[in-house]
Amino acid sequence: MKLHDLMRSLHTDNGSKIVLVVSDGLGGLPVEPGGPTELEAASTPNLDALAAANVCGLSIPVLPGITPGSGPGHLALFGYDPLEFLIGRGLLEALGVDLEVGPGDVAIRGNFCTVNEEGLITDRRAGRIPTETCARLVDKLRQIRLDGVEIILRPVREYRFAMILRGEGLEDGVGDTDPQGTGVAPLAPRARDAASERTAQLAAEFIRQAAELLRDESPANMLTLRGFAKRPPMPSFAELYGLRALALAVYPMYRGLARLVGMTVAGDVSNLAEQVAALRANWSSYDFFFLHFKYTDSTGEDGKFPEKVKRIEELDAAIPEIVALKPDVLIVTGDHSTPCAWRSHSWHPVPVLLASRVARPDRAQRFSESECLAGGLGQFEAKYLMSLALAHAGRLQKFGA
Amino acid sequence: MKLHDLMRSLHTDNGSKIVLVVSDGLGGLPVEPGGPTELEAASTPNLDALAAANVCGLSIPVLPGITPGSGPGHLALFGYDPLEFLIGRGLLEALGVDLEVGPGDVAIRGNFCTVNEEGLITDRRAGRIPTETCARLVDKLRQIRLDGVEIILRPVREYRFAMILRGEGLEDGVGDTDPQGTGVAPLAPRARDAASERTAQLAAEFIRQAAELLRDESPANMLTLRGFAKRPPMPSFAELYGLRALALAVYPMYRGLARLVGMTVAGDVSNLAEQVAALRANWSSYDFFFLHFKYTDSTGEDGKFPEKVKRIEELDAAIPEIVALKPDVLIVTGDHSTPCAWRSHSWHPVPVLLASRVARPDRAQRFSESECLAGGLGQFEAKYLMSLALAHAGRLQKFGA
Repeated sequence: MKLHDLMRSLHTDNGSKIVLVVSDGLGGLPVEPGGPTELEAASTPNLDALAAANVCGLSIPVLPGITPGSGPGHLALFGYDPLEFLIGRGLLEALGVDLEVGPGDVAIRGNFCTVNEEGLITDRRAGRIPTETCARLVDKLRQIRLDGVEIILRPVREYRFAMILRGEGLEDGVGDTDPQGTGVAPLAPRARDAASERTAQLAAEFIRQAAELLRDESPANMLTLRGFAKRPPMPSFAELYGLRALALAVYPMYRGLARLVGMTVAGDVSNLAEQVAALRANWSSYDFFFLHFKYTDSTGEDGKFPEKVKRIEELDAAIPEIVALKPDVLIVTGDHSTPCAWRSHSWHPVPVLLASRVARPDRAQRFSESECLAGGLGQFEAKYLMSLALAHAGRLQKFGA
Repeated sequence: MKLHDLMRSLHTDNGSKIVLVVSDGLGGLPVEPGGPTELEAASTPNLDALAAANVCGLSIPVLPGITPGSGPGHLALFGYDPLEFLIGRGLLEALGVDLEVGPGDVAIRGNFCTVNEEGLITDRRAGRIPTETCARLVDKLRQIRLDGVEIILRPVREYRFAMILRGEGLEDGVGDTDPQGTGVAPLAPRARDAASERTAQLAAEFIRQAAELLRDESPANMLTLRGFAKRPPMPSFAELYGLRALALAVYPMYRGLARLVGMTVAGDVSNLAEQVAALRANWSSYDFFFLHFKYTDSTGEDGKFPEKVKRIEELDAAIPEIVALKPDVLIVTGDHSTPCAWRSHSWHPVPVLLASRVARPDRAQRFSESECLAGGLGQFEAKYLMSLALAHAGRLQKFGA
């Protein structure tokens, strides 16, 4: 019997409400020896008060030392083992531009590139063309027709675009055409299994037509395709947990990840105030609310310590409004750490705060990395966050007699 | 290589003695913000002295957030992964009334119920008839004869009884006949696999004869059968650990669980003093002693904080007598938490104290939930308790060269 079997068989509905606030890339590091982390430097009276009165801990996004991307980071928080449910690159790219990816669709990431007269790649990123050029070229590609499948295209940024093949019998066992180097020609799309042969042929035909359409462009006179990916089969939040779940996310990728697990996505929220307002407006219609706050990650990626501190304080200021709704369980955590000192996602365990009437008090008196080390949840794999949330909400029955 | 393979291949006999004291439902919660847990409120000088001088930690009974019943809670403490070794409801019910369940037996839980003239259930619990009535009705059912199988029946409490079918070729893939609602007839016992067909037919014939015998009774004029279960195949304590194990338990269910893993069960112990006396009397004949103390669970279920505190103090007072026997390893823990504030089993990690000459000292200075958070054993899944016990007793060889 596995975690998901337990969840499926033990969940019950007692009308309680759970709020999961994900502050992306929340965990940090000191920038100088003996200095504070971003969380320690921030003034967070509301989070600190919750931490002192409730239970804290640290979540390990995947396994010790493993740095997750946004996909595995969030899937783990949603209770899906990120080593079992793999989100391909093409799929994540499509979700990131708000494309709906159906169960049979194959999502692909496209890169415009430059080839010379012999067809050898001279620039894998086509000189990082402006996003507007990308949009114009993608528009051109919309003339391509393939037998029996629909092609959905959307520009992403600079030389990147997202693509979906939609139709019967498509599979994603197709290799990248990007040779990962210059001075060589793009690879042909190769099927890794018999079932993916047709998809590989369709991709080859797409590339053939695209090459003709792009021939006279400069510098983006060719493209490569990468990360062919279908949606992995995933049980939904409703099936696993019996939860009606609402996602409140400003950025498309997080809305897309929430959709993958069957959450409803609130439209039209463009900042934290609107997210909290939507939370309040939808309070009676859902059991579970996922609120995503992006800026602790982006400031971390940029290495901007004071800005990340300010963003943490902005989140802290929104906490009382959430608490005022009286959720039975309120969790504040991140999907991974993004220390300014590292300027990138990292593997460092992520502070977790769980507030509930039946949270067992511990020694964590503030919401920070070091205080969470004294927390009663200990260090745990992020995939267990949902069972802890449901338990503290009284939504799990006893296992076994 | 799995935990059990390690245990099988590494155990050795050095004549050392291990005592495992299980205080059922030991872990707790404060009943008011900032207040103490039951363990923190109790005066436990003996347990505190052991905690200060030895090593502590917290055990997670199953997985984070998962609340175990008594079956999985104890199996985990005995070193059996509770997600792998599943104890069906019928089996637990039979163990709970001291029925011996053999390897081929099918154990079933029976409920007396009330049906109307159309045979539709009007009360699934037959008005919670007194236990004496249950005993009289069970006696009546003893007239039932089935072809080629022995029927063993025992009243449990109120409307509940336990039943065993004993014979060749019985299997437990049979669905409940309790429809889990009123206004509908009991279900027929349905086989979920071909191997269980015969058992389903025997159950149907049992129900047919029972209906005739109960026809003129009121309100218990019918019955339902639930939780068809055989013993899961389990390696014994002797095989896994090389231990001669003795169980000292007042309540039948815990004696039954101990029997499942091959422990000898001490007869005739009806209180803690007698359990400790039996421990002393049998000291030279066994290597491992499981002493079960029930009352920290029952007071927790009743929500009686001062009573649970008193029971903890009662257990503490018995510790010096156990210590006087000089066990090489003495463990005090629980199978799960039963906080008075929750009035039920819970998922909260359970304090563990392990006393041994080679316990590495840690920062836990008292035996309580919060002090155990500073313990050297950290938080660990309960299934690892036995390997820790054997290791500290010098009973495990090195793994690998």
